[in-house]
Amino acid sequence: MDDDIIDKTVPEEEGYALDSRTVSAIMLAVAAGDSARLAALLEQLHPADIADLLEQVDSGRRREILLMGGRQFDGEVLSELAEGLREEVIAFLPPDVLAEAVRDLESDDVVDLIEDLEQPQQEAILDALEVADRVAVEQALGYPDYSAGRLMQREVVRAPEHWTVGETIDHLRAHKKSLPDQFYHVIVVDPGIRPVGYVTLGKLLASKRSVRLTALLEDSFRTIPVTQPESEVAYAFNQYHLISAPVVDEGGRLVGVITIDDAMNVLDEEHEEDILRLAGVGEESLTDNVLDIARGRFPWLVVNVVTAILASVVIAQFEEVIAQIVALAVLMPIVASMGGNAGTQSLTVAVRALATKNLTASNMWRVIRREALAGLLNGFAFAVIMGVVAVIWFGKPMIGVVIALAMVVTLMAAAVGGIVIPILLERLKVDPALASGPFVTTVTDIVGFFVFLGIATMVLL
Amino acid sequence: MDDDIIDKTVPEEEGYALDSRTVSAIMLAVAAGDSARLAALLEQLHPADIADLLEQVDSGRRREILLMGGRQFDGEVLSELAEGLREEVIAFLPPDVLAEAVRDLESDDVVDLIEDLEQPQQEAILDALEVADRVAVEQALGYPDYSAGRLMQREVVRAPEHWTVGETIDHLRAHKKSLPDQFYHVIVVDPGIRPVGYVTLGKLLASKRSVRLTALLEDSFRTIPVTQPESEVAYAFNQYHLISAPVVDEGGRLVGVITIDDAMNVLDEEHEEDILRLAGVGEESLTDNVLDIARGRFPWLVVNVVTAILASVVIAQFEEVIAQIVALAVLMPIVASMGGNAGTQSLTVAVRALATKNLTASNMWRVIRREALAGLLNGFAFAVIMGVVAVIWFGKPMIGVVIALAMVVTLMAAAVGGIVIPILLERLKVDPALASGPFVTTVTDIVGFFVFLGIATMVLL
Repeated sequence: MDDDIIDKTVPEEEGYALDSRTVSAIMLAVAAGDSARLAALLEQLHPADIADLLEQVDSGRRREILLMGGRQFDGEVLSELAEGLREEVIAFLPPDVLAEAVRDLESDDVVDLIEDLEQPQQEAILDALEVADRVAVEQALGYPDYSAGRLMQREVVRAPEHWTVGETIDHLRAHKKSLPDQFYHVIVVDPGIRPVGYVTLGKLLASKRSVRLTALLEDSFRTIPVTQPESEVAYAFNQYHLISAPVVDEGGRLVGVITIDDAMNVLDEEHEEDILRLAGVGEESLTDNVLDIARGRFPWLVVNVVTAILASVVIAQFEEVIAQIVALAVLMPIVASMGGNAGTQSLTVAVRALATKNLTASNMWRVIRREALAGLLNGFAFAVIMGVVAVIWFGKPMIGVVIALAMVVTLMAAAVGGIVIPILLERLKVDPALASGPFVTTVTDIVGFFVFLGIATMVLL
Repeated sequence: MDDDIIDKTVPEEEGYALDSRTVSAIMLAVAAGDSARLAALLEQLHPADIADLLEQVDSGRRREILLMGGRQFDGEVLSELAEGLREEVIAFLPPDVLAEAVRDLESDDVVDLIEDLEQPQQEAILDALEVADRVAVEQALGYPDYSAGRLMQREVVRAPEHWTVGETIDHLRAHKKSLPDQFYHVIVVDPGIRPVGYVTLGKLLASKRSVRLTALLEDSFRTIPVTQPESEVAYAFNQYHLISAPVVDEGGRLVGVITIDDAMNVLDEEHEEDILRLAGVGEESLTDNVLDIARGRFPWLVVNVVTAILASVVIAQFEEVIAQIVALAVLMPIVASMGGNAGTQSLTVAVRALATKNLTASNMWRVIRREALAGLLNGFAFAVIMGVVAVIWFGKPMIGVVIALAMVVTLMAAAVGGIVIPILLERLKVDPALASGPFVTTVTDIVGFFVFLGIATMVLL
């Protein structure tokens, strides 16, 4: 019976994710107050999945699960938890359980865990650490937010240049206890502890004991300055397929190492941020409460209402023609909608190209020209489509001509605005993902309404 | 002099990316026909940067760079190149240069390179490979597109369960030549070549020769079915912080291994695809020509024009009231714009939560309720703002009341539509990133115009 339920926790259709059967089984155990069953079910899950589970249930259930867990709580679950929930979960945990949990974490995970916590919780966790770990964490917190220094782990496996494979292996065996959980390279350093290269563990294993490390160094070798922004670090890992890279201080001395899994995390967060920013959503998570959600979305809606009012002011200049030809009011939103969408298409491409460093001074003009031409082509296509629709619908050829002309100009303005505005924002050091949308929409709305109603006034009145 | 220029190729401000000075120096060398200088400059660059360079220059320059490169061409540059450019570059390369270039690649890179090429170019590359590699590549191409089988490398380092650390190291030393360039684990297999666990190279190095491999196995261990979609693979690497994972066939036999850098690539591509799809852009790259760009964006604009016409049909039902009160035509676009943007906000959050498996059956209703309430809150806020603006602008209190009511209903509909539509699409196995936008906009436009003009008709006529 017990086995039966545990068996069902093996993910099926959904692949690797926490599946709904497991969640139901856990909820049943919580409702029944069966903490042994709960412990057995949680035991099967990876800490990342337990964190997901805690994120998906409501606050009351979360509390029950944590309280029933009793003395046992895996520190990694805290690391995996959405930032918005960490404070709540930490507050639920008895101080000694929390202390026990964080003591198992690597120093870079502790840094990641506590950097956004409030002072008292930060203190509580720092106090729980052993002195050496505490010093390491406090040093890391001394580096700027979102820098390589925050991301790196300080446990480094290094060897002097003159060592052989045999000496290195003997050293590793002698220091087995203090080695990091995961490491992929031995970093070779000069007498000033400056990295000169690295040897992969594969080469070390496959070479004879008498071979010198310097004979096994990899060709390509990059170090990361400790103050480099984490977005640059992630870019470098992705672009150059790095697995791990040594981090150095201003003097070029080795102070830590960043591994690809940390870089992958950063890349994932940056993408998330880009997508949300493009949609005008701040740092939002599914665990936020109603007020936080509403508050987070409010600013962009305010920007949008201002640009929409600007567009309305343009329309108001043409009240006379609209009053006489109501068909214009009927067709107007089509111009705005097509302009807005075409603008979003090209600004999204531009924002991505800027983020991946594919849009640079060397190809900028070519890209702008290509966008303008593509906008013109689609402008002509939709001029024909909407021209025909308008003529059939309203039976007046001139209305067809007016909307056709408006389509060409608006789609071309959308294409050019969609690429030029992000480039300008990037030059002004404003994040194009965040700010391009409102600017581009303002341009397409104003150009669209002005051209459509302006041409209508000239042609139809 | 020479040194001076090469010195400047060291990236400065821009961090790790190909910087504009390097590009200028390369362009100068190309213009001067100085192939020695060009070779020296390219020598300094990582293949990924050379690929970026080729992507950023125009087709004529690309040809010059490739022709001046002469006999030398690094196969990795092909791997790193945007898919849209591979065919062009391959066509520029003399057959023997191409053959030499691809022979240096690992089998998984060759698979990635040729899977999207036309038949003749595919053949040319397959013919250039040694027989064993050719067989490996053809087998990989037998697996479904975007599956683990396409992604994995077939070179695997494995050891039987009964081996000791010493035996494993001796085996690695004896087979040094045939080891993969990068590997991080030794996969321990049973007599049927089914993986039973893995040992990290770090543990192998730090343990005594007499220790059995089975004593060093890591706790957590996941295998990946060879037919699993690559998106699931990337999810698992990201969620469980995997570095490499064995790939098994239906019989559970080890057939390959996927490493984190491949998973990171997939994750990056998926994100890119999500962002572009949300904006209604197909698989577009900066290297596409004008026609491809226009054609790629056309379909979504067609969908959009249809939904915009639907919205116009709603407006047309209210021609009478608009003709009498032109202020309605002036304010109408504000309702549509606010609804569209609020809808985009909540659909983007929903699409991301679905993609990261954070929005599931267990929290769906809670999330929908929270969205609806947040929409209602912002609806009230903008009801007040727009109500006041409209009264001041037009001097008629009833117009303020009409737009205020329209704001509440529209923003609430946007919030609910933005979450419910992606969930429904996901259930129907339609990619929510691709299809949510048009549906949500249609809902917000129709609801917005209907409510605004409908209430106006009741209240003002």
